[in-house]
Amino acid sequence: MWRHGAVRPGPAWLLVLLLLLPSPLWAAGPDGGLPHLLLIVAAMLVAGKLLGEVAERLGLPSVLGELTAGLLLGSSLLGVVPAAGAPGTDMIRLLAELGVILLLFEVGLETDLREMARVGPAALAVAAVGVTVPFVLGYAYWAWLPHSATGDGGDLRTVAIFVGATLTATSVGITARVLGDLGRMDTAEARIILGAAVIDDIIGLVILSVVSGIAAGGTVTAAGVGATFAIAVGFLVAALVLGNLLVPRLADRVLRMRVRGVVVAVSIAFALALAALAAQVGSALIIGAFAAGLILRETRHAPTVEHEVRPVAALLAPIFFVNVGAAADVRLLDPTRPDAGAVLLIAGALTLIAVAGKLVAGWGAPWVRYHRLTVGAGMVPRGEVGLIFADVGRQAGLLSDTTFSIVLLMVMATTFIAPVALKVIFARVPGA
Amino acid sequence: MWRHGAVRPGPAWLLVLLLLLPSPLWAAGPDGGLPHLLLIVAAMLVAGKLLGEVAERLGLPSVLGELTAGLLLGSSLLGVVPAAGAPGTDMIRLLAELGVILLLFEVGLETDLREMARVGPAALAVAAVGVTVPFVLGYAYWAWLPHSATGDGGDLRTVAIFVGATLTATSVGITARVLGDLGRMDTAEARIILGAAVIDDIIGLVILSVVSGIAAGGTVTAAGVGATFAIAVGFLVAALVLGNLLVPRLADRVLRMRVRGVVVAVSIAFALALAALAAQVGSALIIGAFAAGLILRETRHAPTVEHEVRPVAALLAPIFFVNVGAAADVRLLDPTRPDAGAVLLIAGALTLIAVAGKLVAGWGAPWVRYHRLTVGAGMVPRGEVGLIFADVGRQAGLLSDTTFSIVLLMVMATTFIAPVALKVIFARVPGA
Repeated sequence: MWRHGAVRPGPAWLLVLLLLLPSPLWAAGPDGGLPHLLLIVAAMLVAGKLLGEVAERLGLPSVLGELTAGLLLGSSLLGVVPAAGAPGTDMIRLLAELGVILLLFEVGLETDLREMARVGPAALAVAAVGVTVPFVLGYAYWAWLPHSATGDGGDLRTVAIFVGATLTATSVGITARVLGDLGRMDTAEARIILGAAVIDDIIGLVILSVVSGIAAGGTVTAAGVGATFAIAVGFLVAALVLGNLLVPRLADRVLRMRVRGVVVAVSIAFALALAALAAQVGSALIIGAFAAGLILRETRHAPTVEHEVRPVAALLAPIFFVNVGAAADVRLLDPTRPDAGAVLLIAGALTLIAVAGKLVAGWGAPWVRYHRLTVGAGMVPRGEVGLIFADVGRQAGLLSDTTFSIVLLMVMATTFIAPVALKVIFARVPGA
Repeated sequence: MWRHGAVRPGPAWLLVLLLLLPSPLWAAGPDGGLPHLLLIVAAMLVAGKLLGEVAERLGLPSVLGELTAGLLLGSSLLGVVPAAGAPGTDMIRLLAELGVILLLFEVGLETDLREMARVGPAALAVAAVGVTVPFVLGYAYWAWLPHSATGDGGDLRTVAIFVGATLTATSVGITARVLGDLGRMDTAEARIILGAAVIDDIIGLVILSVVSGIAAGGTVTAAGVGATFAIAVGFLVAALVLGNLLVPRLADRVLRMRVRGVVVAVSIAFALALAALAAQVGSALIIGAFAAGLILRETRHAPTVEHEVRPVAALLAPIFFVNVGAAADVRLLDPTRPDAGAVLLIAGALTLIAVAGKLVAGWGAPWVRYHRLTVGAGMVPRGEVGLIFADVGRQAGLLSDTTFSIVLLMVMATTFIAPVALKVIFARVPGA
């Protein structure tokens, strides 16, 4: 890596300043149509990559730079990326979703399923502990301690279920990026973390359908919970079995074609189709994209596919991470606000629960040898899934805007803490 | 190229059949949200590439396969790609616009400006003839001959101006793709065609602003026409002068960065930003994207940028062409319709004017040596710009749905005729 000392200002920074400045161009407002949208995407790309470069030169994973770029561009600071719900945000959301789909597709392409199966029971145990402990602690904290500053509506216990739920799911995307940035994708710890994170996503889907049912005023049944779980696992198994039967021969045919870009277009179409199928049978987009990567990895064309998909993923994934950063409202931390202290205290307590609950998960599989602190730290980032839970709760009128922002702060904090912690741990434990 | 005889059915076709079939998945309708949209995009990609491969094996440019894929997937046949205006179409439109931006960015990266300047006067003459002749012929045909079958509203002469306008602009995208597919990008004829097509686009913008003014009930002033023209030319000149001053040093800094995907992300951000700037000063997106490519070509990093941008362009450009094909309503040609004969006759006459008017343009620069028929044939495809004109007219209530579809048929016909004609001409004139 090219790191020679401090970051010096230079012409490159002129470009980012030009794009970051709230110039008259932004004044076109969210109704500025396609040109305005393209400028926003350009600013997200440039700011994400430049701050990613700064993070790397400081010895940090580049994903942190992208999240910081999002914080800066978000509606609470520069206002370049419009707040959720504004016109045009559905377009940015589409590009961000394509980014996370491509990211998980890439992770799948790089994941050795046989190696992962070897750590399967350990990953399952880590995931189970990592979901249960934060949920119980979060629920207890919210249900039994007073939070007058948050002003939530509805039944306090229902709100507490939502808050607990936001603490459960690990962000596969952020964890995978951090492990990749650190060059540690090929360790036993990484496999346990990723395996547990995928299982977390499946459990997260179950929780999401349960909390969505609560938000809609329905009741929770054991049969409903079981069905959601069975669908996610069933989809993954069916996709892998059918995929490994059908895809290798199809891939041979496609790879023999000569039309320009056939590999990148057809393999990404495959990832999109599996992502859509997963969502339509009641599972999650990213589970389908991950399965598509796992299936194509088993063909002998995996290196070609990886080579062609890499630039597309490198282009779109930052849009996802910048968009996650942009969702945070940093104004809540403004010390001149009367409730800033209370908000910070609650967010701090929630972050503590989030971090402690996942660190404990590192000790979830005592019968297997691995570096427990590494796995625990790897499970800490919450990211997108926690944000989805919080958003469902807010839209149902259960979580107040303040509680939503507190959850956002917790998610951001875990996302910032985990890469730094992993970096420090990996530096001290070279064998891990 | 890999061409061994006829196209055989095989497992690859199972995949496309699976995606093309109007399965229960499509039944989710345009309101199916993100998963449904992803399935549509996947179907567009797979069908575009597979029919592109069929076209190549038949010895035709692959872009014809992509347009045919669009015809098949469009709302008038399989209905996989929803009709314009349906929910979700703005998302597909965004991806298609990104595709055409990347395509023109790539064309710019491959265009030698010095070579192009040498053919400048010839290109200008070809463009001028190619705009004037079809416009005058189209206007005269529509204003002076009766078209009872079309049922247009408003003043007949205003409608005739619109119809004439749709006949003027050459599709840089389709022409560039065809020349690229045929491996003839590096000929004098190709430079004249592309130069004239870009000038056509600038003239087309002027016409668009004029016809938009007419549609809005305004009056046409010479000052307004002059201003639109000056903006487009001024933008191109200013972008090239400033770009060539500032960008090479910036590019050196960006290329020295080590964060993953910095080249692809920052160079595409540059193309998006210039495209947006062009549109916001009153010119067109594709002129900005083309300028961005021209500027980056002058840096010594052009090969790196081209290598990284290629997979992204190969992924998104087909979405544009499939989307163009999907806009055509082939049901108008249904022989059981009472007006099918009249519609076909009018569309045929318009196509004849369109083809003849552009072929004449090939002889527009008698003082320069080049193969005149090749240049004339290269100017024939209309594509996106003609469709934009027609759409403005329809939305203003001036063009009836039938006239709109006739214009669409003309655009499609020119788009199908040109590649075949170029292919035949290039085969007979090896030196051209």
